[in-house]
Amino acid sequence: MEKYKIIGWDIGGANIKATKIIYNQQKQKLESIKSVSKFFPMWDQNLNPKAIIQEIYHNLAEADYFAVTMTAELADRFSTKIEGINFIVDLFKNNFTNKKLFFFNNQAQLFNPLEIANNFDRLLELAAANWSVSAAFAAEFKSDFVLFDLGSSTIDLIPVKNHQIAARGRTDVERLKEAELIYLGLLRSNLSNLTKNIPYQGQMVDVINEYFASTADLHLFLDIITPADYSVSPADNGEKTKKAAAARIARMISLDLNSISAGQLQLIADYIYNQEISLIYSKLLQLYSRFSLDYKIPLMMNREAALFENDLKMRSDFNFISLEELIPVLKDNTLTTTAAAFLLLKKLTKTDLTKLKELAND
Amino acid sequence: MEKYKIIGWDIGGANIKATKIIYNQQKQKLESIKSVSKFFPMWDQNLNPKAIIQEIYHNLAEADYFAVTMTAELADRFSTKIEGINFIVDLFKNNFTNKKLFFFNNQAQLFNPLEIANNFDRLLELAAANWSVSAAFAAEFKSDFVLFDLGSSTIDLIPVKNHQIAARGRTDVERLKEAELIYLGLLRSNLSNLTKNIPYQGQMVDVINEYFASTADLHLFLDIITPADYSVSPADNGEKTKKAAAARIARMISLDLNSISAGQLQLIADYIYNQEISLIYSKLLQLYSRFSLDYKIPLMMNREAALFENDLKMRSDFNFISLEELIPVLKDNTLTTTAAAFLLLKKLTKTDLTKLKELAND
Repeated sequence: MEKYKIIGWDIGGANIKATKIIYNQQKQKLESIKSVSKFFPMWDQNLNPKAIIQEIYHNLAEADYFAVTMTAELADRFSTKIEGINFIVDLFKNNFTNKKLFFFNNQAQLFNPLEIANNFDRLLELAAANWSVSAAFAAEFKSDFVLFDLGSSTIDLIPVKNHQIAARGRTDVERLKEAELIYLGLLRSNLSNLTKNIPYQGQMVDVINEYFASTADLHLFLDIITPADYSVSPADNGEKTKKAAAARIARMISLDLNSISAGQLQLIADYIYNQEISLIYSKLLQLYSRFSLDYKIPLMMNREAALFENDLKMRSDFNFISLEELIPVLKDNTLTTTAAAFLLLKKLTKTDLTKLKELAND
Repeated sequence: MEKYKIIGWDIGGANIKATKIIYNQQKQKLESIKSVSKFFPMWDQNLNPKAIIQEIYHNLAEADYFAVTMTAELADRFSTKIEGINFIVDLFKNNFTNKKLFFFNNQAQLFNPLEIANNFDRLLELAAANWSVSAAFAAEFKSDFVLFDLGSSTIDLIPVKNHQIAARGRTDVERLKEAELIYLGLLRSNLSNLTKNIPYQGQMVDVINEYFASTADLHLFLDIITPADYSVSPADNGEKTKKAAAARIARMISLDLNSISAGQLQLIADYIYNQEISLIYSKLLQLYSRFSLDYKIPLMMNREAALFENDLKMRSDFNFISLEELIPVLKDNTLTTTAAAFLLLKKLTKTDLTKLKELAND
């Protein structure tokens, strides 16, 4: 076969993402790469992901191979993880009968449907495996680092040693315990979970236990992201403007923009942001405390994580490196799905992925 | 009278401090100023402060006026505050019978012994009044600011408006509630109160609830202070070196220098320091949230507070100013006792203190 056409899929709880690559084996060149991401609220039982997956497939056009990773099995439309995993596996098996399908487990190993069919343990290892796919891909390009992958709702911190994933946790709960997974993201996290209280009129006021504002609001208000980056629905389904974000933040202590000054809001936003950075910093230090080399092991930041670099650098002498500089093809593509496609390509062709960092010029 | 010789006294719980000034009224010049500070553990009932006060007096040589402020009444050698206040008032009345004595209340007002004798309410207002003395003095030189006075065991945050103290709290407990008083200092605070746990070998380990290490150890280890600044007794009565400080910090989670690497210790110190700065930052934001002008009101830092300026600046856009630049005479003198002496001078002579910022040259 001369050309490999592979789509990497990431079936998440809030987004469905895909990256298609075309690899010309004769020329040993990456001819094409394209990524797509669509918001899809898996928790909404009235919606079926089938249509959106087919829409993405038609958008990316034909492919022979699918490499699928998932986290959607955690969505509460499924009563158990195995139910969610089977739902997603069957979705692909039943709707793409002429594709060569592969699924990643949480050690970034690929299995075809026959290898996992009716195998409860293997199926269960497909749960929340996307972090290992990303890390295994990055590990092709560098020997020792900690991957800091900031997503819309979570942070993955994944140690890599000698080009191998050196994580202590495999499942979500193990990874939470080891500070390898943090439920805090650039956009979707509920701000009321980030701080118990907020300074207002000289007192610390308890935050209302509702979903009124998200990290997207905080980051938009503080100019860390732009309205174009605000790719989720605001809590009030309102506008994605700084003013609307300010109103949502004010609502956390039952205020509106008529009852709070710009200065007070700035101070509140600074306060919450400092809580956020302190949480990330604490988790980073917990993770780095397993090494006895302090901060020497590089922290490899994805584009989103790099937004917090300055604030973390002030606190400790981390050795930051950029994932996108290491693997330029990621500048316009999604990490996990690019990783999924490339790792399947490697399995099929034994190609040295470090030669495919960039798109072929011709 | 041509020359006023005044000693300002601060009878604290851990230190006794004094500043003597000589003011030439005819020439309207500050002829001399000298400060002395001695460690004195007021909580030790076997020790009597009388000897050390007399030693300081002889060191500073003769004076006609004493202006006394205190916090020592909080020491647990006294069962009530009034007992401590009477002890200190009597100490001066009985041992310096030929001096003109004045005591500050918590609004920086001066009273002679007759004005407070047997007046329970007035006596009680002498408790923990030193912060108001410092702030009232600084308020002579600038109209609007928040004084950030970092001491060895506490931080005073004192708003001043239109040259008047604008604090909400008068007593310690009121000031604690309003974020105007924080029991965290450069040297004497128990590090185990600064953080619940410490990152070690990838886990968060609970800190031992003992007094093993102090903020002096943390700040020495992190090169924020020098051994010369380490003017308190280490918890283990050991050496005031970085290595000994490191051992005391390691002891917080039952380690010694044989069982922890330099890198691990650095990470632990960074972690605790970040907790410290976060505590200070949170209190600052609580206090500033009473204004609706965000950070415009200047934060006037004493020399010690200025050590934390960079770390606070990273978190918010504070408008820092230097107390020592505003009042150069403080470069070699203690704030509270200098303030005490000058405020009494003003009461006696109506002198404009802004003309006495520096020592006369001739």
